[in-house]
Amino acid sequence: MFDCQDVLNRTYQRVLAMENKGAVASYIPELAKVDPANFGVCITTKTGEQFHCGNSITPFSIQSIAKVLSLSLAISHQGEKMWERMDFEPSGSSFNSLVQLETENGIPRNPLINAGAIVVCDILCDLFENPKEELLNYVRKISGIKSISYNLEVAKSERLTGYRNYALLNFIKSFGNIKNDCDTVIDVYFHLCSLEMNCVELSKTFGFLANRGKQIITNTQVVKPSQAKRINAIMQTCGFYDEAGEFAFRVGLPGKSGVGGGMVAVLPDAYTIATWSPKLNKHGNSYRGMKFLEYFTDETQDTVF
Amino acid sequence: MFDCQDVLNRTYQRVLAMENKGAVASYIPELAKVDPANFGVCITTKTGEQFHCGNSITPFSIQSIAKVLSLSLAISHQGEKMWERMDFEPSGSSFNSLVQLETENGIPRNPLINAGAIVVCDILCDLFENPKEELLNYVRKISGIKSISYNLEVAKSERLTGYRNYALLNFIKSFGNIKNDCDTVIDVYFHLCSLEMNCVELSKTFGFLANRGKQIITNTQVVKPSQAKRINAIMQTCGFYDEAGEFAFRVGLPGKSGVGGGMVAVLPDAYTIATWSPKLNKHGNSYRGMKFLEYFTDETQDTVF
Amino acid sequence: MFDCQDVLNRTYQRVLAMENKGAVASYIPELAKVDPANFGVCITTKTGEQFHCGNSITPFSIQSIAKVLSLSLAISHQGEKMWERMDFEPSGSSFNSLVQLETENGIPRNPLINAGAIVVCDILCDLFENPKEELLNYVRKISGIKSISYNLEVAKSERLTGYRNYALLNFIKSFGNIKNDCDTVIDVYFHLCSLEMNCVELSKTFGFLANRGKQIITNTQVVKPSQAKRINAIMQTCGFYDEAGEFAFRVGLPGKSGVGGGMVAVLPDAYTIATWSPKLNKHGNSYRGMKFLEYFTDETQDTVF
Amino acid sequence: MFDCQDVLNRTYQRVLAMENKGAVASYIPELAKVDPANFGVCITTKTGEQFHCGNSITPFSIQSIAKVLSLSLAISHQGEKMWERMDFEPSGSSFNSLVQLETENGIPRNPLINAGAIVVCDILCDLFENPKEELLNYVRKISGIKSISYNLEVAKSERLTGYRNYALLNFIKSFGNIKNDCDTVIDVYFHLCSLEMNCVELSKTFGFLANRGKQIITNTQVVKPSQAKRINAIMQTCGFYDEAGEFAFRVGLPGKSGVGGGMVAVLPDAYTIATWSPKLNKHGNSYRGMKFLEYFTDETQDTVF
Repeated sequence: MFDCQDVLNRTYQRVLAMENKGAVASYIPELAKVDPANFGVCITTKTGEQFHCGNSITPFSIQSIAKVLSLSLAISHQGEKMWERMDFEPSGSSFNSLVQLETENGIPRNPLINAGAIVVCDILCDLFENPKEELLNYVRKISGIKSISYNLEVAKSERLTGYRNYALLNFIKSFGNIKNDCDTVIDVYFHLCSLEMNCVELSKTFGFLANRGKQIITNTQVVKPSQAKRINAIMQTCGFYDEAGEFAFRVGLPGKSGVGGGMVAVLPDAYTIATWSPKLNKHGNSYRGMKFLEYFTDETQDTVF
Repeated sequence: MFDCQDVLNRTYQRVLAMENKGAVASYIPELAKVDPANFGVCITTKTGEQFHCGNSITPFSIQSIAKVLSLSLAISHQGEKMWERMDFEPSGSSFNSLVQLETENGIPRNPLINAGAIVVCDILCDLFENPKEELLNYVRKISGIKSISYNLEVAKSERLTGYRNYALLNFIKSFGNIKNDCDTVIDVYFHLCSLEMNCVELSKTFGFLANRGKQIITNTQVVKPSQAKRINAIMQTCGFYDEAGEFAFRVGLPGKSGVGGGMVAVLPDAYTIATWSPKLNKHGNSYRGMKFLEYFTDETQDTVF
Repeated sequence: MFDCQDVLNRTYQRVLAMENKGAVASYIPELAKVDPANFGVCITTKTGEQFHCGNSITPFSIQSIAKVLSLSLAISHQGEKMWERMDFEPSGSSFNSLVQLETENGIPRNPLINAGAIVVCDILCDLFENPKEELLNYVRKISGIKSISYNLEVAKSERLTGYRNYALLNFIKSFGNIKNDCDTVIDVYFHLCSLEMNCVELSKTFGFLANRGKQIITNTQVVKPSQAKRINAIMQTCGFYDEAGEFAFRVGLPGKSGVGGGMVAVLPDAYTIATWSPKLNKHGNSYRGMKFLEYFTDETQDTVF
Repeated sequence: MFDCQDVLNRTYQRVLAMENKGAVASYIPELAKVDPANFGVCITTKTGEQFHCGNSITPFSIQSIAKVLSLSLAISHQGEKMWERMDFEPSGSSFNSLVQLETENGIPRNPLINAGAIVVCDILCDLFENPKEELLNYVRKISGIKSISYNLEVAKSERLTGYRNYALLNFIKSFGNIKNDCDTVIDVYFHLCSLEMNCVELSKTFGFLANRGKQIITNTQVVKPSQAKRINAIMQTCGFYDEAGEFAFRVGLPGKSGVGGGMVAVLPDAYTIATWSPKLNKHGNSYRGMKFLEYFTDETQDTVF
């Protein structure tokens, strides 16, 4: 195998030397005030080795990346049953999301777009009396990191400005595909989006997806191997909104991004890689994160394709 | 490695024993009159071994599967330049295709939907004086099979009923994204769709995508390794219209289907697998082909995820 | 002039003799439990004469017909300024309403679709400290009928099931086109929809639109003549959702319908005509109401065209 | 009655004194080369009096205005039967036209949008052996003007650049709603759009719509009174693409515009008014024509509302 730390360092320096393009997400103050110069990466192998570089231990808001974790929790309890309430197809342009809900009677296209993640939160409300606590405990358990927490300021800010998500939720409820009270569901959703981790923690948390569903180090089964395969498949086809194809094309790994500037990618049976840099390209994905993952996989020739 | 012929046989028998659901495509007589009982499979490894079963040497109309071959020819000549004229993102539901062309000014979402494949045909008309001949020669060359041909009856039938494709073509031309005469371009497109192969030939033809861009057996480089990776990535995210996610989810391999009932899937660095059974599910993909590939990969645990 | 009472009676009997097709709106219990056999009509001339027939003094929920009254109140205070926040173009199929809001940045297409009526309610919240009271007083004033009231049971039921309208409201707010608190605005909207009148009251209330903006009998100016003309124009092009063209085509008068089975139509400078019959056709307009107005205007040859 | 020539002159001068905003249609050379300073108006009363001003006898391309004439010819032969193949509802934004055809299975929303006018041309191909000749004879007959003709250069230019219309035609044919050969139908359509008249001729030609379906002067019945009413209703709700509401709102008369800068409006039982000025506003309607009709009807208080 290649010298992982060496390739990591060189790729990091290469991207660092480039102009830091894009814009930091600004729809809530907590995201807007983050220093755009931050740039961290961490690789965690399925045997538990970690290689990192840059601002890799600075916590950030993982935002939509957390949708993979709520999906994982729901799928581990409900299995195939959950697909009665959503699909696992790519969504095309974000523009189409509302049209799609209309033509498909409130069935979201996949669990990684907002509409689908909201239905996943509704499923968590069905399953648990205290869904927020259960979700947090789950994330702490699969990561083995007790200190992971919601950022309550972020959750509150999301709530105050999240009219579009609240519109989605009510629209889906009008089709009967939300079972719980809207305010309860949205509260879970906004807490989910407020989860904070650093790159080292994020890549470790996602380790089970590179390890056939088993937590790394302890090898505890978190989801079934077939479920891990399916989560990876969903990330591959649906993980990057309007840039899912771009990511498959340039990086060639399943992954997920968040508007906080985080990204995570998985090479099954090998490693996970987390990056963080707050400036986003026009599709809402981290500019440096995309570059890093593209250059890194070009050099290592690691790809699922 | 598992005993490939054995797993192939057992999976074949398992699917054969199930009810043969779905409906044969009937929009042209040449497809409608095919015997729905046909069912063939063939695996070709990157070292050239072949394992097959059932009606694996009966030729059929590969239809949209051929779009991967025209893409391959175009990409080998134009490289990244071709992405100025189309994108490589999944398209969402087929319903959205015209809306998407409208909102994105005539830029098709990817080269495997009809709109994109039509623009690829226009690129071939730019590149070659006799695009139909060049395309056929290319397919014969990369497959090493001289007898592969267009079915002129099929091409003619497509032409007589292909109003929707002709509408797409004219619509794209209205945005300036078709450079050649509409009748010339559509003629290439309908010939492309009329290519005929059997399962043994189809899996061999696609061998270069499991072999980092090199033709199997001769190891002649057909497309660059990075281009093979990208074609696989595009098949993964865009190869099955409304069922791209389903295929990634259940099969976990890049692939492409056609309305003639053919399917092809690729396990990079290992093998390609072609199936043929004419009855289609509601998404237009072969009912038995999907089942076969799902059960086969379940048993072998072969998946890119 | 024709003998109004005679034509009214004969047309009423003609429609009464036909099969009473369609279905009563059932999304809230208060509408579902109305006797579908109800059928009333009333004509009020601009000089104050009234001709009625059938269940013309039974009160019913005027529902969306009330949107003309909130529009009238808003336009009388804001004049042309209100068109900065909405348009006055027909909306095409209801299917497109969310898509349209998306492509036109939260600007509703006209004040008579739900999205537009919600923005009108937001304008009323801007204008008045107690918008519900002001609105009710306004309706009582222009009608000269003190007993007109909201049905609080209906308003409450609308609130409990109105997820789609709440989705619309939040969606518009996400574009910045709602200034007040969502709960305050929706409360006004659901009260607006709960207004109750009978046919005699309804045709009298709308008298100002047949009288160049002046209340009938008292001749008090309610809106400017040019505003009355514009409200009529908006009713003509936008008053019947998917059936605006049908109504113009078959009836030829500006008008508005509600899911409670009420309809009102205006012949400028002559009269208003209100009908009520709870069974709705597939476009959501009263089956008998449409028939009555078509046959009535056929016989009288009254049409703006 | 007001002094028609006087109001006409004063309104003409008022608009002439304003800045001549907008842009001349340039998609074909024949339209692009017209002098943008042209501005003519003509009123023809139902008794045959004519009042005109400015460039009122300079011929221009009436373009989409002609769709009212093909509709009239079709309706006079087919009556209600033609509504099996198209609707008469407003279309919302032009953006929605393709979506609408898709969701409504190739049934155009009304006969005045391109899709609908194309189906009308297909109906003319059903009705007549020589549809172009029949159509021209019909226009000459109802206008009483033998010299009206197609502009063959315009028809040819339309043909060479009309990819979008050809796309629409093929798309509708894919749903089975075009019965004749595509090339035959489009030829009729492009000739229809190439009709030339001046303002005096145009207002006279439309006279039957202000005269309950009877040609003015001769009083020959051209269409039934109920059909005239319906054509007016369709013009009112569908005559101005994205500005149908605007026109109803500001002018208050049924009418139709063309990209050549012509407009025609009808006050039933009174007069028709034709205007021509080539510069178009952003909705594709004549800038000066809209202003003239708005100011004219403001002053005369002529409105159907």
